[in-house]
Amino acid sequence: MKIAIDAMGGDHAPKEIVLGAMEAVSKNKDLHISLVGDQQQISTYLTDDTNIEIIHADEVITGEDEPVRAVRRKKNSSLVMMANEVKEGRADACISAGNTGALMSAGLFVVGRIPGIDRPALSPTLPTLDGKGFLLLDVGANVDAKPQHLVQYAIMGSIYTSKVRSIKNPTVGLLNVGTEDGKGNDLTKKAFSLMKDAPINFIGNVEARDLLSGAADVVVTDGFSGNVALKTIEGTAMTMFSMLKESFMSSFKTKVAAGMMKGDLKQLKNKLDYSEYGGAGLFGLAAPVIKAHGSSNSRAIQSAISQTVYMVEHDVTNTIKETVEKMEVEKEE
Amino acid sequence: MKIAIDAMGGDHAPKEIVLGAMEAVSKNKDLHISLVGDQQQISTYLTDDTNIEIIHADEVITGEDEPVRAVRRKKNSSLVMMANEVKEGRADACISAGNTGALMSAGLFVVGRIPGIDRPALSPTLPTLDGKGFLLLDVGANVDAKPQHLVQYAIMGSIYTSKVRSIKNPTVGLLNVGTEDGKGNDLTKKAFSLMKDAPINFIGNVEARDLLSGAADVVVTDGFSGNVALKTIEGTAMTMFSMLKESFMSSFKTKVAAGMMKGDLKQLKNKLDYSEYGGAGLFGLAAPVIKAHGSSNSRAIQSAISQTVYMVEHDVTNTIKETVEKMEVEKEE
Repeated sequence: MKIAIDAMGGDHAPKEIVLGAMEAVSKNKDLHISLVGDQQQISTYLTDDTNIEIIHADEVITGEDEPVRAVRRKKNSSLVMMANEVKEGRADACISAGNTGALMSAGLFVVGRIPGIDRPALSPTLPTLDGKGFLLLDVGANVDAKPQHLVQYAIMGSIYTSKVRSIKNPTVGLLNVGTEDGKGNDLTKKAFSLMKDAPINFIGNVEARDLLSGAADVVVTDGFSGNVALKTIEGTAMTMFSMLKESFMSSFKTKVAAGMMKGDLKQLKNKLDYSEYGGAGLFGLAAPVIKAHGSSNSRAIQSAISQTVYMVEHDVTNTIKETVEKMEVEKEE
Repeated sequence: MKIAIDAMGGDHAPKEIVLGAMEAVSKNKDLHISLVGDQQQISTYLTDDTNIEIIHADEVITGEDEPVRAVRRKKNSSLVMMANEVKEGRADACISAGNTGALMSAGLFVVGRIPGIDRPALSPTLPTLDGKGFLLLDVGANVDAKPQHLVQYAIMGSIYTSKVRSIKNPTVGLLNVGTEDGKGNDLTKKAFSLMKDAPINFIGNVEARDLLSGAADVVVTDGFSGNVALKTIEGTAMTMFSMLKESFMSSFKTKVAAGMMKGDLKQLKNKLDYSEYGGAGLFGLAAPVIKAHGSSNSRAIQSAISQTVYMVEHDVTNTIKETVEKMEVEKEE
């Protein structure tokens, strides 16, 4: 199996990307990695090139680049060249910790969609109180979703969760303003009735309040609301940690208490750190395309690589393709 | 000034409602309150009826009632009779801690809209890191919003914030998937360009990640996304408190630390408790209609009453009406 990785994407590129790649191949003999990026910079950190090849790229797409334009113009960027490796069959999947919008564009325009899937969905796994985690999709690949898109997300999320996360018959919920049937806006009302007939374990509407308590294994929503939910979780957690820190620093007594709690608070922070669950899959493309966190260290890169390996090994892409084809046939009959 | 209050709505009704009302009138000589609900139950707690009148109501709308149907059928419920007090000019404003959907229905069908406002918006004030708070609207009165609705929310939120919260020239942000101009779905793109021309201090797009750090004094969004944002904040905070509690209970050492931190953690919890900021206004109606928290104690009821008094005193409803009329005239010119 070969995975192409954008060695120049992310806050700690190329160092942490290269280190993560070396560690991943050392643990999996069947894995080959192509690191796409500046040859010289990558070489500085590549102390062992067993099963790792460097593909030199002149350009880099930065976080400031306008995604669609960057992908069109920067043909020699590490991100676009990485996507080309997949398109031209030299890699089975690809990973980038760089510009999310650009990765979505490259996924759509270079790698291409699975026939039958109208829109790809950006799909991170987020933490839950019990540590099991849940898949939220879409969080922003497609901000103007139609009801049938949501059904496709449900199917893709369900296949991913059972194959890669080994959750049998995963529950699928529709993010909505109330749990009762018949609740919601025009989009969710229509999606609800389509989802009842889809080949998934649909449990109905779930509320944003219950996401982190594990209301469903897969939570489906349009890219706008999903983006709002994801960023609200991040912002609320960040704010609460700031407030906690302030409380801990407010007096001598609390500072002592903070010292006693240090390890436990670190653990709490890790529990909420969703890079532990790997990157966000861009589901619905002709091959696995994974967005690793921008702040990924070598460990996060490693977990994104493991996740990608699972997706290739368990043939997630083909399963999605076949499931969608079968639905189309049944619809026509 | 007279305020009608649904004495039967909320988890702690009628006791905490009655106590809150008595405390409020004791502090404000110009305030008269009508408590609408079961005469006998209210009397049990009404130890001082100075400036307080009881309006007997036979029925109660519960949390389980389907809102629109309940308002139509339960004509003798405390909630509907409260709204009638406003409609028929016997009260200047009203407050309920009961069924939110039913209050929205009663607001719309009994109290009625301000001419020129298409849809009312449910508008809570939420906490920020710096303690200033911000107004989020709409959080679910209207789940299928159009661009012009968002502009109306912006105007109403802006007027409320400057008049009642005394924030001069409040900043107004549009909740979106990115901060750059041109970002968003069809709705937010169209709303953005309309908001630029509205009589508000529009600062552009804000992301959900920055809500609690105080990105804007007023954050405007459609009722679906606003509901998701609000409930995600609640859910994330709740989950983090559960995780914290678990951490604190994990060992003897952490239990000791927890004991030392008790007061500070309580403070943190209060900081995030948005009932401190009063209830959620249902803006756009012909008179102030306030939804107090379901879990309101007498103190929360008091702050909802103060907020309502401010809204009446500062003539928020008429200011909204005049501003919208002026915009219409300008549009025609």
